[in-house]
Amino acid sequence: MTRPAFARWLSQTNEVTKTFLAAGQVPDLINLAGGLPEPSVWPVDELAEIAASAVRDHPGQSLAYPPIGGLPALRSLIARKYSSDALPLTRDNVLITSGGMQALDLIGRVLLEQGSPVAAQSPAYLGALDAWRPSLPTYLPMDLEGGDFDPLPAISGAQFAYTVPNFSNPTGHIVDTAMRRRLVEAAEQTGTWLVEDDPYGALYYDCDPLPSMMSMAGSGNAYDGPVIYLGSLSKEVVPGLRIGWAIAAPEMIDALTVAKQGTDMCTSGLSQRIAYETFHSGLADRILPNILATYRARRDALCAAMTAELSDLFTWEVPAGGMFVWARARDPRIDTDDLLQAGIERGVCVSPSSVFDPLGQDHGAIRINFTLNPPERLAEGVRRLRATVTDLLAKAA
Amino acid sequence: MTRPAFARWLSQTNEVTKTFLAAGQVPDLINLAGGLPEPSVWPVDELAEIAASAVRDHPGQSLAYPPIGGLPALRSLIARKYSSDALPLTRDNVLITSGGMQALDLIGRVLLEQGSPVAAQSPAYLGALDAWRPSLPTYLPMDLEGGDFDPLPAISGAQFAYTVPNFSNPTGHIVDTAMRRRLVEAAEQTGTWLVEDDPYGALYYDCDPLPSMMSMAGSGNAYDGPVIYLGSLSKEVVPGLRIGWAIAAPEMIDALTVAKQGTDMCTSGLSQRIAYETFHSGLADRILPNILATYRARRDALCAAMTAELSDLFTWEVPAGGMFVWARARDPRIDTDDLLQAGIERGVCVSPSSVFDPLGQDHGAIRINFTLNPPERLAEGVRRLRATVTDLLAKAA
Repeated sequence: MTRPAFARWLSQTNEVTKTFLAAGQVPDLINLAGGLPEPSVWPVDELAEIAASAVRDHPGQSLAYPPIGGLPALRSLIARKYSSDALPLTRDNVLITSGGMQALDLIGRVLLEQGSPVAAQSPAYLGALDAWRPSLPTYLPMDLEGGDFDPLPAISGAQFAYTVPNFSNPTGHIVDTAMRRRLVEAAEQTGTWLVEDDPYGALYYDCDPLPSMMSMAGSGNAYDGPVIYLGSLSKEVVPGLRIGWAIAAPEMIDALTVAKQGTDMCTSGLSQRIAYETFHSGLADRILPNILATYRARRDALCAAMTAELSDLFTWEVPAGGMFVWARARDPRIDTDDLLQAGIERGVCVSPSSVFDPLGQDHGAIRINFTLNPPERLAEGVRRLRATVTDLLAKAA
Repeated sequence: MTRPAFARWLSQTNEVTKTFLAAGQVPDLINLAGGLPEPSVWPVDELAEIAASAVRDHPGQSLAYPPIGGLPALRSLIARKYSSDALPLTRDNVLITSGGMQALDLIGRVLLEQGSPVAAQSPAYLGALDAWRPSLPTYLPMDLEGGDFDPLPAISGAQFAYTVPNFSNPTGHIVDTAMRRRLVEAAEQTGTWLVEDDPYGALYYDCDPLPSMMSMAGSGNAYDGPVIYLGSLSKEVVPGLRIGWAIAAPEMIDALTVAKQGTDMCTSGLSQRIAYETFHSGLADRILPNILATYRARRDALCAAMTAELSDLFTWEVPAGGMFVWARARDPRIDTDDLLQAGIERGVCVSPSSVFDPLGQDHGAIRINFTLNPPERLAEGVRRLRATVTDLLAKAA
């Protein structure tokens, strides 16, 4: 008796996210790998009250099957949140998704056949690569952080272009306004869809936010532009409710909704109702200053420790927001896949660059998260990292 | 400027679920189409308290990213719920899914390439056909309600076989014990996976439950059989939390978990925690008798009204459980696709057989739901249905 073969794409997956989650169980391990938020910033008591009231006072929204596209009140609220004179949005521009992750999956479903071309900011978010793996796409990498890059050749002919312009995962860098404009123009010129994945858009620590590409594509008329904007409750409030949203031209929202129907039918009504109330009551706005102050202090603590311990071993830029520092090893003998494993043995876990490279070729950098751990643990993590790298170099010598 | 083409499968979708949901907004329309539960059976106050306590007392489980496979406590509880001496299950046999729907999607992801063969009980659940549409599978229909059907030829060579043995959606019929055994034997003999989709397994109104196919595949050792069992919170408690579970051999659970990681990363922690407490506290058991009494009375009311109004127009069997009656038009001139549209104009909505036929060829039957409406509305719906059919026949004459 032989069981049927699994689909081909399954042999292409990496185990790194599972490694990260499992490493979370190792005693005293300092997890600098994931993109996890700090639980102490969550407004637990307020959310408990909102949850109870969502069930008691709105059982029809919280407990019944919600519409596939999301609760109308939440869709309208999200539309208002992002609307401006130049960008008038309605609920027909909005789909509620089961976390930002699901939007990436649905975009792949509606736009990719096997092997379809995708233009992707490179390095790129691991979860996006995971979401599209079943289609085994052909990636056209885009270096959006090099100021003179012309995105038109990659975008031309791609089914869509993928970007995280605010504090890219993994690099933490910003795509500047000029490049954003160039991307929007290329999308408008070619017709290609332009995915603006923005989970970190509220996490600016040092300056005012840059304009979104979606806002650049606004014409003052009902929105029908090429930008598909993705937002999430995970970084600004809590991740465990699994609420995200896609904002796009109605024809794209309609297609994503058909795909969602066959995927999970609809997103938890209770989570949607809590998300609605969290925004509507102003709770999300009230907790943001504390989140920013906490994460800014942790970024500063991580970068200070890195300056003290890692300057001779890595290069990096201090990110102006988000959750990550991207550090490149000075010595080309360092393979950061080895660094992941060796680090876990020394009690520190970071993400290797290979998993963020759509082509899998970059083995020279690491992504370090600074939101989950307090300053003293970040400093200890950096010391363990230095010891691990020194060790690897001694073995390589 | 031309936008990139949508994926091919999108042109193959039907709009019927959206028609049903939209019809829900028509004033005074009697919706006999969907598979919706009766909200008055929900324990709203208890669930409100459980929700508040889930957030307040278990924020780490409710608000953080849960593990991809689900909260360990809930996975273990589900394993215990279905375990017996012959079928010892552990949490490694269990994946928590975002509704039962997601399990169908994930099974397609891990087992289907474009055009792969699927053996499916026919007629089949519309949502399953939706879930697998992106792979445009080749369906091998199985008539499991005809007592002498041999499932081996269809199952042999299929990537998996799909069944709803308890009160099939759409027919409401039961697959008898002998046929269940034949299916399990065919799966064990060929190695093919056998999907036992069981959302209605608790909704037996007239007799004791038949043994599950999963239990038939138990050997007394750690479970590693070919049956993939799917359960759901939607019909026994509430649908809006979007909690389901898959129970299977560990290698299948592992593959489904990889697919889930790229789909929605994880299921709402709050929903999972509430599901855990609903079972653990005994609340789910306490509310079941009222659900059964309510639905049994509605089934009886629907069937009495049908006997009075529709005996000359349709044939049907009284289902022993579940949510649906399947009625076949006596007159072959009746096309039930027309009946859906004409019915909505007369204020009644039923599901046409074409959407449940994997090959799309059956236009002679309807699925009637009896759980959402009270007896007097069911009777009025049946009267409207009679008027609609009489009308269609007069036009056809």
